[in-house]
Amino acid sequence: MHRVVIVGAGFGGLAAARRLRNTAVHVTVVDQRNFHTFQPLLYEVATAGLESGDVAYPIRSMFGKADNIDFHYDAVTGVDWEQRQLLTSSTGGIPFDSLIVASGATAAFFRIPGAHEFSYPLYTLTDARTLRDHVLATLEAADNSPDPDTNGMLNFVVVGGGATGVEVAGALAELKDISRRHDGFRFDITKARIILIDGEERLLTPFKESASSYAAHTLERRGIELWFGRMVKSITSEGLELDDGTTVATQTVVWAGGVTVEGTVAAAIGCPTARGGRLVVNPDLTIPGQHGAYAIGDAAAIPLVAKKAEPSENDPTCPQLAQVAIQSGKHAAEQILRSLKGEELPVFHYFDKGIMATIGRKAAVAQFPKGQVIKGTLGWLSWLGLHLVYLVGFRNKLVVLINWTWRYLSWGSGPRLIVSGARYAPVGDAAEPPGFADPYDPHLRLPPVDPAT
Amino acid sequence: MHRVVIVGAGFGGLAAARRLRNTAVHVTVVDQRNFHTFQPLLYEVATAGLESGDVAYPIRSMFGKADNIDFHYDAVTGVDWEQRQLLTSSTGGIPFDSLIVASGATAAFFRIPGAHEFSYPLYTLTDARTLRDHVLATLEAADNSPDPDTNGMLNFVVVGGGATGVEVAGALAELKDISRRHDGFRFDITKARIILIDGEERLLTPFKESASSYAAHTLERRGIELWFGRMVKSITSEGLELDDGTTVATQTVVWAGGVTVEGTVAAAIGCPTARGGRLVVNPDLTIPGQHGAYAIGDAAAIPLVAKKAEPSENDPTCPQLAQVAIQSGKHAAEQILRSLKGEELPVFHYFDKGIMATIGRKAAVAQFPKGQVIKGTLGWLSWLGLHLVYLVGFRNKLVVLINWTWRYLSWGSGPRLIVSGARYAPVGDAAEPPGFADPYDPHLRLPPVDPAT
Repeated sequence: MHRVVIVGAGFGGLAAARRLRNTAVHVTVVDQRNFHTFQPLLYEVATAGLESGDVAYPIRSMFGKADNIDFHYDAVTGVDWEQRQLLTSSTGGIPFDSLIVASGATAAFFRIPGAHEFSYPLYTLTDARTLRDHVLATLEAADNSPDPDTNGMLNFVVVGGGATGVEVAGALAELKDISRRHDGFRFDITKARIILIDGEERLLTPFKESASSYAAHTLERRGIELWFGRMVKSITSEGLELDDGTTVATQTVVWAGGVTVEGTVAAAIGCPTARGGRLVVNPDLTIPGQHGAYAIGDAAAIPLVAKKAEPSENDPTCPQLAQVAIQSGKHAAEQILRSLKGEELPVFHYFDKGIMATIGRKAAVAQFPKGQVIKGTLGWLSWLGLHLVYLVGFRNKLVVLINWTWRYLSWGSGPRLIVSGARYAPVGDAAEPPGFADPYDPHLRLPPVDPAT
Repeated sequence: MHRVVIVGAGFGGLAAARRLRNTAVHVTVVDQRNFHTFQPLLYEVATAGLESGDVAYPIRSMFGKADNIDFHYDAVTGVDWEQRQLLTSSTGGIPFDSLIVASGATAAFFRIPGAHEFSYPLYTLTDARTLRDHVLATLEAADNSPDPDTNGMLNFVVVGGGATGVEVAGALAELKDISRRHDGFRFDITKARIILIDGEERLLTPFKESASSYAAHTLERRGIELWFGRMVKSITSEGLELDDGTTVATQTVVWAGGVTVEGTVAAAIGCPTARGGRLVVNPDLTIPGQHGAYAIGDAAAIPLVAKKAEPSENDPTCPQLAQVAIQSGKHAAEQILRSLKGEELPVFHYFDKGIMATIGRKAAVAQFPKGQVIKGTLGWLSWLGLHLVYLVGFRNKLVVLINWTWRYLSWGSGPRLIVSGARYAPVGDAAEPPGFADPYDPHLRLPPVDPAT
C-alpha cells in the first residue's frame, strides 16, 4: 500500500489526512503533540476566556477509527531522502512513498535582544497557558504589593498590530474590566495600562483603511493605548525600549510581532527555503527535486496563482492563513491520489474567502475578497459563528458556545486558574522558602529552539 | 473590625468563609493557589475524563463581590503568635484577631523508598494533570515501541484500595476500554494490565463487607487484578517490589496509599500535633493554648463527639472527609461570631451523612450511617447527583454534566491532551535532540516538600 507520511497536525496536515481517509493509501500523521490546536482562539486561553481543552482536540479522537490512518507521537528530526524515511527522535525512521510537510510556523523575534527570553509569544497551547498564568499571577502580585505602580507590574504591552495583537489587546481590556467588576482586588485595577505597539502607522495592515481605523477607535474607546510607528529595540526582565528612546517598565510583553518558519521542522529537512525560512515549492505544491514530496500551509512559500486573490507586488506567495493551509492540505492529498492514477498534477489555486479579526465583545471586522467590510456586532457574530464551525469536535463547539454565551450574558469570568503552580517573584526582600521552586513555573522559559526539533 | 484569617481554600476554608460572608468581621482567605480544587473528581482529570477547569474554581470568583472578604495569594510559612500575624513568603505578616487553619493534608508515602520520587500521588490539580500526561504519554510510547511488553510500559499499578484507589483503577479500566474502541493504537492495548495493591484483605475498609465485595467483583469483572494483603516495599523508575518479594515492572505507580498532615502548613505553625501530624484541637475546634485560633478539616485531629457517627475504638477522631471539613469549617466560623458576642463555644458534632465511592460506569457504592448500602446503577446515579451538587460554580456543574452525558452516551473520550509538553524517554538508543527538554516535563518531579511551605 502506498505510504503517505504527514508531518504536523495543524490545519493543513489535518485537511490532508481527512482527504485521504478511506482511500487506498496508508497515512501516518506525525506530531510532537497529541492534539490539534485551534490557533485562532489561543488568545482566549491566554486571557482566561476559554480552557485549553476547548481549543485543542486529540488527534487520535479524529482518526482512531479510520483504518488507513495511524498517528505517531514523536518529534521530527529530519528526512533521509536516500532511504525515503522521516527521521524522528524516538523510533528512527518512518518510511514513506509520499511526504507532506505541514509543520507550520513559529513566533519570529527578528533577533531583537531579549525578545525571545522576556516576551510571551502566542503560538502554541503552552504559550497561551504560560501567558495566562503569568498575567493572573502578576495581578495577584500587584494585589500583594504595597505599591503596584512602581515596577511596571500594571503595564501590559502587546507588540504587533496584526490580528493576534488586536485580539489579545482587546481581550486584556475585557479581562481588566471583568476583574474590576468581580475580583475584589485591593489595588486599583483601573490603573492597569494596556499598550499596543506597532511599527506601522495603522492596525491590521492586510485590511482596508476603514477597518483599521474602526479597530483603532474601538480599542482606544476600551482604554488601550496605541503607539504607532515605533519599533521595539530591546526587552529585559524589567521592561522594553523603543527605537525612539522611550522606555516602558513592564513585566508582561505579549509578542505578536510575526511568524517565521526558521527554527522549525521545515528547516531540518534539507530543502531550499525562501523568505522567512519557508520551503520553496512549485505551483503544484511539490518540493523541487524531491519526488513525491509536498509542502503546504505556513511552512511553504506557495506561489500565489490566484483565482480570486490578488498577488501583492512584493510577495507573490500565499499569505500564512488557516484557509491557505486547509486548501493546500487538501490539494496536496489530491495530488498524491492523482499521481497514483498517473494523472497530471494541477497548479494550486488559493480561493480567498476573506479575512477577519475580532476586537472584543460585540466588535469585529471581516473583509471580503472584493473589499466589502463588515464591522461591529454583525462582524462579531459572523466571527463567532465561523470560529464555531471550524472548531474541531462537537463537544468543543458546544462547550465554547456555552462559555461564550455565559460570559456574554453574565459578564462573568472564565477559567481563571493559575495552574502552572506559578508564583511571582517575592516582593521586596522576602526570601523564597525552600521547596518553593516548581518545575511548572512558567518563568522557567524554554531554551532557544534548535533547528533540528 | 475583627480580622479573621483563613488558611486554605479547600472544603473547610470555603465553608468557613461562606459562613462569614456579610457578617461584621473582615475575612482574608490565604491560599498558595488561586482556586479551590474539588478533590473528589481529581481522578477524572487524571484519567482524561474531565478538564482541569471543570474541577477547580477561582477563589476570587466566589468572594470578589463580598465586601468583607479578601483573597490573598501567597504561600504560608508560619505564624507569629506573639504579634498575632500569619507569616507568608511574599508579603510578611497578615495580622489576625482570629485564625482558622484549614490547610488540609497531602499524600503520605510512609517513608517507603522511592515512593515519593517514582509514584504519582493524586492530591492536587497538578498531581492529576501530571498523572494524566504521564499515562497518555506512556500509551504513545508503547505505540512507538517495537515491544511494549518488555519494560512494564503496559503495567499500571494503583497502590491503595480506599476510595481514591478504587476510583482510579476503575477509571483506568474505562480509559483502556475507550482507547481500544477509539484510539487506533498499533499495539494491542488489551494487553495493558491494571493492578490494585492493598495491605488489607479487602477494598474500601470503612464500608461494610458487602460493599467491599461488590466493589471487588465489579473491578475484577472489568479486568483489574486485585492483590490483597501485600505491602509495597520499594519503588524505582523501573517498577516496584512487594514485601513478599514479588516484583512488578512498571512505569506508572499511582499512589493512593493515604494522607498525612506532616510536611504541610499545619506543621509550620508551631502547635502540638497528633497522629499523622494533625493539629491537636479541643472538642470546640480551638487550638489549645492559643486564644482565637481554630483548626478544622483534614488538618485537625478533631475529637469525635458523635451525633450519629460511631467513634472507632482505635481513633476517636473525625475521619478525614469532605463532610467533616465542611461542617467543622462552618462551626469554626460560628464560634468566632459567638465569641464576639461573648457566648459560650459549643462542642463540634460531626453529622455523619454516609460515605460513597464510585467504581466506574454504572457502578458505585454508598453507605448510610445506619449501615444500609446502595450499589450499582442507583448508587452511581446518587454519586453523580451528589457530586454535581457539591461542585462549585454553575458553569462547572453544567459542563461536567454535559461531559458525563456525552461520554456515557457516546462511549467517547474526554480531554485527551498531553499538555505538559511531556514526551516519554526515547526508546532504545535514540538520542534526545537538543532543545527537546521542556520545563513543563512532568518527569521533573517536585523536590521533597519542606515543612515550611
